[in-house]
Amino acid sequence: MWVFLNDRFVPKEEAVVSVFDHGFLYGDGVYETLRSYGARIFMRDQHLARLRRSGEAIGLTIPIPDSQWPELLHEAMRRNDVGNERVDAYLRITVSRGEGEIGLDPALCPRPTVVIMTKALHPSPPALSRDGVSLTVATTRRNLPEALSPHIKSTNFLNNILAKRESIAAGTFDSLFLNWRDELTECTISNLFFISGGTVHTPALDCGILDGITRTIVMTLAQEEGLPVREGHYHVTDLRQADECFLTNTSMEVMPVSRVDSFLIGDGHPGPLTRRIQTRFAASRTRFVEPSP
Amino acid sequence: MWVFLNDRFVPKEEAVVSVFDHGFLYGDGVYETLRSYGARIFMRDQHLARLRRSGEAIGLTIPIPDSQWPELLHEAMRRNDVGNERVDAYLRITVSRGEGEIGLDPALCPRPTVVIMTKALHPSPPALSRDGVSLTVATTRRNLPEALSPHIKSTNFLNNILAKRESIAAGTFDSLFLNWRDELTECTISNLFFISGGTVHTPALDCGILDGITRTIVMTLAQEEGLPVREGHYHVTDLRQADECFLTNTSMEVMPVSRVDSFLIGDGHPGPLTRRIQTRFAASRTRFVEPSP
Repeated sequence: MWVFLNDRFVPKEEAVVSVFDHGFLYGDGVYETLRSYGARIFMRDQHLARLRRSGEAIGLTIPIPDSQWPELLHEAMRRNDVGNERVDAYLRITVSRGEGEIGLDPALCPRPTVVIMTKALHPSPPALSRDGVSLTVATTRRNLPEALSPHIKSTNFLNNILAKRESIAAGTFDSLFLNWRDELTECTISNLFFISGGTVHTPALDCGILDGITRTIVMTLAQEEGLPVREGHYHVTDLRQADECFLTNTSMEVMPVSRVDSFLIGDGHPGPLTRRIQTRFAASRTRFVEPSP
Repeated sequence: MWVFLNDRFVPKEEAVVSVFDHGFLYGDGVYETLRSYGARIFMRDQHLARLRRSGEAIGLTIPIPDSQWPELLHEAMRRNDVGNERVDAYLRITVSRGEGEIGLDPALCPRPTVVIMTKALHPSPPALSRDGVSLTVATTRRNLPEALSPHIKSTNFLNNILAKRESIAAGTFDSLFLNWRDELTECTISNLFFISGGTVHTPALDCGILDGITRTIVMTLAQEEGLPVREGHYHVTDLRQADECFLTNTSMEVMPVSRVDSFLIGDGHPGPLTRRIQTRFAASRTRFVEPSP
């Protein structure tokens, strides 16, 4: 496996950073995960724009110009023999503050660290989408937006890890976070949707969630399907009464949810509107990928 | 400079971790900073106990037994020629989840990464203690305890870095955090005290703060000085009306605060009770350090 590190590709074993990298000392960094369909990267420019926005939010300038990213990402796929007609690619860009003396001042770090990791992206096991997944409502609350906004895709991920540990302990697929106001937010790496009476609902951005790229696409596709879409402030009781529920992220796309803690969503099986959105998503992917290289 | 890494001391240049270390990918780790007075480490066992508690809070077992830490810490000081009659030592222990495949499940990482960094600890510039330092009340709020408790000394430090950036922009010494309820909490790396009418006040632990080791000692010493000490829930207005204010942490000890944003504390100079506590702290240090090696 080859990893891009700062200015060149190195074998995985040589992809190392100093223990004085503020990414390691403080989680002081931002990241994006991208995927390809074949050789074509999904929503590439939107991911790169969000990387830059995340950086700006913490005062970190992404040191690679926009014009160079496409070639770097495609070279990362070629070198690892993924992102081709045989297998899709998963890509993770990480940009940390870089190496510097101990201390919180970003000026201690003259040069950010840039890493691109790539691997094969295998589809989720079909049984998950067929049967739907289960969620735990975590006791861990989502980060307070005024403390560390969930809009920032940062490498401060302990909040998510603590919630993930709860779902692992409960034997469920993932945890669902509530915010400081007891409102529904998102899962540890995906956005939440539910459907009630034919309307598609998803928590509003000001609930303190990531502005998910697949979330935005799914809202558009649902409207194209003639379904009303509403962003709002919801509670567990809304989810308990929902007919259908699903999660979205770049690698899972649209994943039905069949159970939350001890209650079933609808009849406990993925619902018809979720299936319509899944089908439309699969049929629409090519609208959202790069042109053929 | 020598750095302890997992099982041996290596030169700083060789102190590297994989980019797949979850400390780098997710800030998934805990740490402690310690100091010595001469060769004797201050509150050593309390720091090590807190390291273990922080690890437990995120499901991370510290892989070095309690019995081995003292020798490791002293070897770190000896190798770097600090922690002796000429210069005190600053030590930072970091334990991250270790290297593992991308993903939030801690089980992906079979072996934690352990790092000990050591350097000379020089006292703060005398002018700071003489004149007192200035604070900015940050717009960034302290982490929500139910999201990521400030009791956990973790390497998720972006909340603190965002607040630190505010004080750097304002030209002040540090930022003071409020919590989600507008209550006073702590600064980016220190606890807060203020004195009103002869009573020493400090935010209660349930405001969402670190259970500071120097904080506890200062509470004890203030009581020994005959000063009533109260832990409570306070607001900026309480600070605005205070006679005196100071910060505590392991390396600064007791640091007077003379100004918060545009208002002076008292007459804008360190007050007499703060001086008494500073003096008592300096005279009492030997009660809180290791026995002579």
